[in-house]
Amino acid sequence: MPFTPSLPLTPSTAHSLIGSALSALRTPCLVVNRSQVERNCTIVRETCAAKGIRLRAHVKTHKCLPAALIQHGGKPGPIVCSTLAEAEHFAEGGFTDILYGVPVSPDKLAQLHALSQSVEVLAVLVDSLDAAAWLEEFARDVQGSGSAEIACTWKCWIKVDTGYHRAGISPAGSDLEARLLPLLQRLTSSPYLQFQGLYSHAGHSYTSLGPVAVAQIAREDRTAMHELAATVRKKLLEWKASAVDGWDVAVGSTPIALNAQQGTTDQEKDDSWRGITELHPGNYPFLDLQQLRYNQLPLDRSAARVLARVLARYPERREILIDAGSLALSKDSAPYTLPDGTEISACYGVLSSHPHLYVRSCSQEVSVIRGLSEEDLSDSKLAPGALVTIIPAHSCLAAGCFPVYAVVEDEKGSEMWGSSVVDVWVKAGGW
Amino acid sequence: MPFTPSLPLTPSTAHSLIGSALSALRTPCLVVNRSQVERNCTIVRETCAAKGIRLRAHVKTHKCLPAALIQHGGKPGPIVCSTLAEAEHFAEGGFTDILYGVPVSPDKLAQLHALSQSVEVLAVLVDSLDAAAWLEEFARDVQGSGSAEIACTWKCWIKVDTGYHRAGISPAGSDLEARLLPLLQRLTSSPYLQFQGLYSHAGHSYTSLGPVAVAQIAREDRTAMHELAATVRKKLLEWKASAVDGWDVAVGSTPIALNAQQGTTDQEKDDSWRGITELHPGNYPFLDLQQLRYNQLPLDRSAARVLARVLARYPERREILIDAGSLALSKDSAPYTLPDGTEISACYGVLSSHPHLYVRSCSQEVSVIRGLSEEDLSDSKLAPGALVTIIPAHSCLAAGCFPVYAVVEDEKGSEMWGSSVVDVWVKAGGW
Repeated sequence: MPFTPSLPLTPSTAHSLIGSALSALRTPCLVVNRSQVERNCTIVRETCAAKGIRLRAHVKTHKCLPAALIQHGGKPGPIVCSTLAEAEHFAEGGFTDILYGVPVSPDKLAQLHALSQSVEVLAVLVDSLDAAAWLEEFARDVQGSGSAEIACTWKCWIKVDTGYHRAGISPAGSDLEARLLPLLQRLTSSPYLQFQGLYSHAGHSYTSLGPVAVAQIAREDRTAMHELAATVRKKLLEWKASAVDGWDVAVGSTPIALNAQQGTTDQEKDDSWRGITELHPGNYPFLDLQQLRYNQLPLDRSAARVLARVLARYPERREILIDAGSLALSKDSAPYTLPDGTEISACYGVLSSHPHLYVRSCSQEVSVIRGLSEEDLSDSKLAPGALVTIIPAHSCLAAGCFPVYAVVEDEKGSEMWGSSVVDVWVKAGGW
Repeated sequence: MPFTPSLPLTPSTAHSLIGSALSALRTPCLVVNRSQVERNCTIVRETCAAKGIRLRAHVKTHKCLPAALIQHGGKPGPIVCSTLAEAEHFAEGGFTDILYGVPVSPDKLAQLHALSQSVEVLAVLVDSLDAAAWLEEFARDVQGSGSAEIACTWKCWIKVDTGYHRAGISPAGSDLEARLLPLLQRLTSSPYLQFQGLYSHAGHSYTSLGPVAVAQIAREDRTAMHELAATVRKKLLEWKASAVDGWDVAVGSTPIALNAQQGTTDQEKDDSWRGITELHPGNYPFLDLQQLRYNQLPLDRSAARVLARVLARYPERREILIDAGSLALSKDSAPYTLPDGTEISACYGVLSSHPHLYVRSCSQEVSVIRGLSEEDLSDSKLAPGALVTIIPAHSCLAAGCFPVYAVVEDEKGSEMWGSSVVDVWVKAGGW
């Protein structure tokens, strides 16, 4: 029995725990297999290269510098982030082309402007004339009176809603004339604003079952963006010929990135990729049950797992209790197909060593694992005190539960990946 | 437009932000109304006093010292916690009677033993002979050879499962003879173990609709515990008469605590409370949509809300976007009844200033609010940049998203509670 102290993994203990055995760590904690992150990132990077598309890595899943460097093959590259805390963290870490990727609001402008002074490109996302007005007003305040040279110019992406209906302006119907083109015109005519590109996130691709359905959504997304880009080009030519070039058309989501790779041969001939200049997926370095399921990928592609310990065993209901609850796994769920073909409509995670065992319910700090056989009930790997690794339903939210990640490498013959901590990654948590 | 910098609320900036306007804080953040926490806690404390039952405050919802002190009326008292990090935090903060309230596992024993040296009572929860064996083995290791006096004694509560089926041993059927009584015998006979009491958590009371259903579950829970206590007393008399007294019978959950208060007159005559010595509810200082709905309480009983800003407005779908996503609200949902009687089966939060507006979906860092009327669409309190407070579906998980809370007091005529930060509470996050 392991009676040695279990070490709490926090930002302040992070450095001292490099070299520790995984079994010495206090559970739950998030373990990242760096080798697998590298493989996952190489696939997407090579896909982008093959298609001649710039990768703007979304960093919201991991929120940490080492993982973003791996996304770009070892050096900083263009990124998109989801919080001010991320933007500040990555700017400080040497990333110089940053898009703050949620619709900008007035309260964030002072920080974003400050940040723009220290990087090459700090761009914002807008989806209304309101936003353009705040940006101009802020820039006018910075400008003050006197100097003729413009002191503050906001680089603006227009957020386009191609069907997810979360944020953005529809590129079709009445929205195009009533909202999108007036915004474009404002961005083109204001001395304080600069049109940077069109940005879509087909988030509805996340819940599409299988590569064929994802490919369909991805193609519709690209077609809509392609048509919109042609309209925009035409308008710019009318309004301001000097602005016709030098802006981007970006699409994203991990399913679309994976789908592009899976279908490379076909897609190369697919005209719908023409004119798309940037791809901004985010979940792919870690992956998770949702992504593996929707993209029909094997479980070993998951690179971030929650390390937990078995607390108790309940033979009468064939369940075990583990010390990772909804504050470690999140309360997001995914559909999952057990190895025997049984469909679980909503599970919160799967034991990587026993893929027929899944998290059926999460309380705050503990979860119940269901599906044990007679054999499992006597398996020492599932005895109270034993370590297990859980592939979470949604790695963005599971990673969000932890301020630091324990990093391991592949290790031959180990179900637990590497058994010692080779690095600790500290992330930009909070806001 | 507020172009002043928004200040990130973190443990290191916490102290300096006392006195700041709420509107200066970077969103999202968690705002706690201390006046409402005090009112919520007074009700439960008075209920316990009226019934002559000790309150063992569960601290897992807020995980911070100031809130636990309010639970006990201003001074430390008995608590139950859900992580080692909490146990250590509260021991250091002057709490001297601590129950580590999840089934204990071998990896946690060294820390728990260390902790037991610095407090009066550090008790553990067990639900198997396995656990008793580890505790004994650990104590024997501490004992070493030589001294006759026992160096390490573990105070053990037996976790009883009265119907929630998460952890614990059933007090009826074959489990009683096969598992519960053998464990009791072991606790009674070992020099290293001490039987401290019987502990149930009727978690199935959380999803019971209304006080009548909760009362039914609560009564069944007490009846089962009452019968079990009688059996235990009889067995102890047989085995070790000196152990017949001095142990507790504890039941819990916030619905049960609120129900006990709501039904005080009837319950006072209710024999099922006889023999129950401790109550250990946890959610009641903050409350949330789940608890308000299940216990039919008004929204203003909620004392912890997520402060967010409106990012964008989408008139065509009558929705707005806010900057609090699932990393601020969690992905837990609650049923909710709109003021017009419409039932929403799963919502993630409700706008406290506009109770007909609810969070229909959460992405990682943003959420979509649904239900705007024509009037709402032109309401300046819902314009982009405006601050809103969200009553979360589940406050334990929403609070879990934040390392610190901004504390306010009641303020007359303000929908936003107090408009300035009177205190900042730093919590024991992590594990």
